Amino acid sequence: MAKITPISGFPEWLPQEKILEDNVVSIVRGIYESHGYTPIETRSVEPMSVLASKGDVNKEIYAIERASAEKSESKEDRLALHFDLTIPFARYVAQNFNELDFPFKRYQLQRSWRGERPQEGRFREFYQFDVDVVSIDDLPICHDAEMVSIIYKAFTKLGLGDFQIKINNRKLLLGIYEHFGLSEAQRQDAVIAVDKIDKIGPEGVTKELLAIGLNESVAKEIIRCAGIKVSTSEFASIVNTLGPTNELYKAGVSEISEVLNLLVPGAADRVIVDLSLARGLDYYTGTIIETVLTDHRSFGSVAGGGRYENLTSRFGNKNIPGVGISIGVTRLMSLILAKGLLKTKERSPTRVLVSLPNAETMPKAIKLAETLRSRGISTEVFHKPSKFGKQIEYADKKGIPFIAFTGENEALEVKDLTTKEQRPISVEDLVKLAKK
Amino acid sequence: MAKITPISGFPEWLPQEKILEDNVVSIVRGIYESHGYTPIETRSVEPMSVLASKGDVNKEIYAIERASAEKSESKEDRLALHFDLTIPFARYVAQNFNELDFPFKRYQLQRSWRGERPQEGRFREFYQFDVDVVSIDDLPICHDAEMVSIIYKAFTKLGLGDFQIKINNRKLLLGIYEHFGLSEAQRQDAVIAVDKIDKIGPEGVTKELLAIGLNESVAKEIIRCAGIKVSTSEFASIVNTLGPTNELYKAGVSEISEVLNLLVPGAADRVIVDLSLARGLDYYTGTIIETVLTDHRSFGSVAGGGRYENLTSRFGNKNIPGVGISIGVTRLMSLILAKGLLKTKERSPTRVLVSLPNAETMPKAIKLAETLRSRGISTEVFHKPSKFGKQIEYADKKGIPFIAFTGENEALEVKDLTTKEQRPISVEDLVKLAKK
Repeated sequence: MAKITPISGFPEWLPQEKILEDNVVSIVRGIYESHGYTPIETRSVEPMSVLASKGDVNKEIYAIERASAEKSESKEDRLALHFDLTIPFARYVAQNFNELDFPFKRYQLQRSWRGERPQEGRFREFYQFDVDVVSIDDLPICHDAEMVSIIYKAFTKLGLGDFQIKINNRKLLLGIYEHFGLSEAQRQDAVIAVDKIDKIGPEGVTKELLAIGLNESVAKEIIRCAGIKVSTSEFASIVNTLGPTNELYKAGVSEISEVLNLLVPGAADRVIVDLSLARGLDYYTGTIIETVLTDHRSFGSVAGGGRYENLTSRFGNKNIPGVGISIGVTRLMSLILAKGLLKTKERSPTRVLVSLPNAETMPKAIKLAETLRSRGISTEVFHKPSKFGKQIEYADKKGIPFIAFTGENEALEVKDLTTKEQRPISVEDLVKLAKK
Repeated sequence: MAKITPISGFPEWLPQEKILEDNVVSIVRGIYESHGYTPIETRSVEPMSVLASKGDVNKEIYAIERASAEKSESKEDRLALHFDLTIPFARYVAQNFNELDFPFKRYQLQRSWRGERPQEGRFREFYQFDVDVVSIDDLPICHDAEMVSIIYKAFTKLGLGDFQIKINNRKLLLGIYEHFGLSEAQRQDAVIAVDKIDKIGPEGVTKELLAIGLNESVAKEIIRCAGIKVSTSEFASIVNTLGPTNELYKAGVSEISEVLNLLVPGAADRVIVDLSLARGLDYYTGTIIETVLTDHRSFGSVAGGGRYENLTSRFGNKNIPGVGISIGVTRLMSLILAKGLLKTKERSPTRVLVSLPNAETMPKAIKLAETLRSRGISTEVFHKPSKFGKQIEYADKKGIPFIAFTGENEALEVKDLTTKEQRPISVEDLVKLAKK
């Protein structure tokens, strides 16, 4: 007898939880599609040599190997499960370059795998829901604003409580570091150090800045800048008095201003420009975005991304700038389920259960069920002749709201399981009732 | 520079192909849900020891291994990618037994992996779309009929041309073999031999039957029975004169009759009872089902399944009978794409492209786009100020049907890219037009 083993880091949901996840996905997909983003998927595997170029992640990659494989397969040619959707997307764009329409706007919902140590909100198998737009040679900043607008609309519609969209710009950050005389190498290190400010505090970041060779007064200035968190209305007045005036800084300020100008109505109230936001990943070059649920700040970002200079740099010499965001669906679901942020009584899509008093009723019950289904009502026929009490219990347990009883000739009654009321009804009215 | 490598057996679709696949999936999901089936997903991996109990498939299983893994991980404890959805479903039911509502009706759309040699319609990574109902101790035959009805409705709605649903029953088959005096072992071998009749013909099957020790006259009788293919109206009269009268045979006849009686209207015309249908998999115990597209018979079955006695036998002593079918989505898509069975001009979900004559128009264009999106119209704003010709070309290439032009004040015009006509329009009428 095989053992039944939950596997750490490989989460699974119960039916009622999966229905919630499907609702979340459907809301996000609806927003992505409403902006004209098209679905793609990629294979789950890439050659190890393609994935392994990303330093630290290497040891977390899962290689796959057929049980019957010859041992001679070289390590480099081995296939491995992707650990994010960015590299597969880049490869897909490079591979299908001549078949795609640019700007290419795509969304992608797929599982990824990372063999890291499982912990709260970190999984070994997880869904990410990415949306990106990439173009050839240049891509206007309006798309960066679109990403912020998409997050605003998605999290408004998801209804997970208050949220805040933090934005910043890498050019502005690097402009600050240039202003204070940091070397090229120090600037990269400073980005990584400042990124940790929420976790290790200003003192911790100061220590790291001193460790990369900055003097105390410069470190202090950088911490001062990183402390700036301004609403969209305050942004212009504050950044212009912060100190730096170099071209890089001004470009960053100008890009942020443009993003703020092009947001959809309402979004600005949720946006804060947070100069401590840095995002460790080194491929961002302009706008950076993170989103936190206000009541769950310690959980970290639930949707983030940014602008990058060239998606396909590792695959060729095309220049493909882009901007995109990613929602960690499995991560987000783990929070939603743990904190009960969304609830449903539904344990099935069924709206109407057609009761079955005896076996002879079956053809009639099936006919009624088919009528309801053809009108868009998800319908089950109770599976075997049983007492009404048992059928009601079944419907109640599954969260099915209505039971239909077929009688002599065309007689039809409905029981509403919320009000417990039972009454005669026409098929037409039953359809209306069940559609509510 | 990393190589861009298609990987044999791991298919990917272009955006316009993925849109077709999404349509196929959405139709099938709609039918599954209309019958009250609830979505679940399982993790992609199981312990090797759980998967490897299935004989021949073993060598096709992909094990996964972290690049950093200690070599001491024993072979048996290794994780492996599932090769179908049946074993994971069985494990899920056993694991969550106390949390589920029985009869448990679930559908499941997921990738599976098999390291077999890629060939037409056979992939190493592929989607299957399964639907099953399982219950405790007994499950009425009406559910077998429901599976046939689901296939009927799905393939009618998919519009892939004529199709035929073949059904048979394992009890009836085994009753025939009992009647002709086959031993227990010979009966199983005969099932496997008869299953190949479409591939190797009656002569080939005869050879195999002789090889398992049957004499020529018995082999001839079995081939004669396997030759029976009857419409639902002829079924009763023909099976009752075929010869066998034992209990097993009569049980099979009775189950098929009940399935035929409980089909939804219209389905019977597509159903044929085909006594050569055997389905090699040994876990079927009653109804068996296969579906062929009439114009593509050589492609084989596009949707099949059947009744099994105990889903969870390998995980415990619960008795969980069930019936289910599976649609090989990737396989089916490969046929649809190769033969052009479905076509679309769509390369994006966008219905309206809002034209952008100059940068100053952007806020106005975004406002119009948001209005349309809030009314359910997928809308893009052209990404940068350009000549109209270029914007029309972009829309045409992507299959976007309408371009909206914003003018002075609230003026609005629409160009229909099918008729090439351009005219003034109200927002309200544009919504109606784009919704068509």
